[in-house]
Amino acid sequence: MQQYFVKGNAENPVTITDKETAKHMFSVMRLAAGDEVVLVFDDGVKRLARVLSSQDQQFELVENLAENVEMPVEVTIASGFPKGDKLELISQKATELGASAIWAYPADWSVVKWDGKKLAKKEDKLAKIVLGAAEQSKRNRVPEVKLFDTKKDLLARLADFDKIFIAYEETAKAGERSALAQELAQITPGQKLLFVFGPEGGISPQEIESFEAAGGIKVGLGPRIMRTETAPLYALSAVSYALELADHD
Amino acid sequence: MQQYFVKGNAENPVTITDKETAKHMFSVMRLAAGDEVVLVFDDGVKRLARVLSSQDQQFELVENLAENVEMPVEVTIASGFPKGDKLELISQKATELGASAIWAYPADWSVVKWDGKKLAKKEDKLAKIVLGAAEQSKRNRVPEVKLFDTKKDLLARLADFDKIFIAYEETAKAGERSALAQELAQITPGQKLLFVFGPEGGISPQEIESFEAAGGIKVGLGPRIMRTETAPLYALSAVSYALELADHD
Repeated sequence: MQQYFVKGNAENPVTITDKETAKHMFSVMRLAAGDEVVLVFDDGVKRLARVLSSQDQQFELVENLAENVEMPVEVTIASGFPKGDKLELISQKATELGASAIWAYPADWSVVKWDGKKLAKKEDKLAKIVLGAAEQSKRNRVPEVKLFDTKKDLLARLADFDKIFIAYEETAKAGERSALAQELAQITPGQKLLFVFGPEGGISPQEIESFEAAGGIKVGLGPRIMRTETAPLYALSAVSYALELADHD
Repeated sequence: MQQYFVKGNAENPVTITDKETAKHMFSVMRLAAGDEVVLVFDDGVKRLARVLSSQDQQFELVENLAENVEMPVEVTIASGFPKGDKLELISQKATELGASAIWAYPADWSVVKWDGKKLAKKEDKLAKIVLGAAEQSKRNRVPEVKLFDTKKDLLARLADFDKIFIAYEETAKAGERSALAQELAQITPGQKLLFVFGPEGGISPQEIESFEAAGGIKVGLGPRIMRTETAPLYALSAVSYALELADHD
């Protein structure tokens, strides 16, 4: 069944005011009175809803659905600004793979320089991609999208996390293979994890130092060299596997 | 250091005859006498090699390198033909993530219909993408690329595998979460695993039946709905995490 996110608290009946959402519902999908969809408000609860009036864009909430597909932990990924439109792929796939927030920052070795206006435009575009992916993958939450203006702004947020993992290629090359698994074995539900990734050129020694000073742990993600857009997908899959599949009977 | 795959057995000195490889070496990278690269022959051993003559496209093999980044098991992924150029993304990412072979087949619910000529052209293109990705991710092996003409041809190959996993969305929805982890806990090095994925529309009941008749096990890949091109990346990451990171001290 089609799922839509609606900003705000659940109210019954509810009128859809967001233009893009209403357009998809009534112009693209041509919903008519009596048709059912799933609506998800800010509380993350999925609710079965029935169209009362397509003209008024109004739904009646029928019942709450128990389905929750969120990870047991909140995983934020932070990518060094990569080239081209790689952030679009990262954002879409990270949403499908359960990320709680998708961040990016101007890393020392980022080739691209995005200023305020470009940054805001990019953030908007990514937010739309993430919203669409969250609806398609039936998430209960829409991941936050945030592009930091400066690295300082990112560093100021590090204290919010229970665990910070620095995906570091040299660690992987040196044969370090178990740190991530050891850490994940000790994670408890509800904790906030951050994975930091470099851009194409990698993370600079100064950055490693900053992240380590904030409690970050260098981890390898297997022995193969992954492109900058692939590593976050590996990390999210690994967390899901460890906490949703392996740690489950 | 730049890495290249060279078809055939190692010989010393070796002359590069493949036109694309030679072009990249001597026109793009402008290698000159004395420059060093890594060459990987059919035996999968990485060898340090030094240019003897760029005009003759000839290298001297200096020494064998111990580095092996291959998975401890051989993982083949088989995707139902997806729409557009999704197989390109799958092939590139699956190579980075350690796949041993990347297969695709005309599934019951595949929308695209690729005939012999189109299929051969697509296979060629994918093989080039995979070769480039294997060089970039410093693989010891170039994954096989195979697009099956008929599903029968795929089914005839199922007996080659020690384990066949059917990625089945309904299994994931039903809350099945641990089958994959239980199976991976019993895998031994060198075994051959196959993961079968449906196209956008999913795997048909008849296909499930055929794969199960060959010993396939339905597995969920977590609670979220993933796009057809994302599921293989999750599966490969999960196998890597389970066998390369978690099962390691």
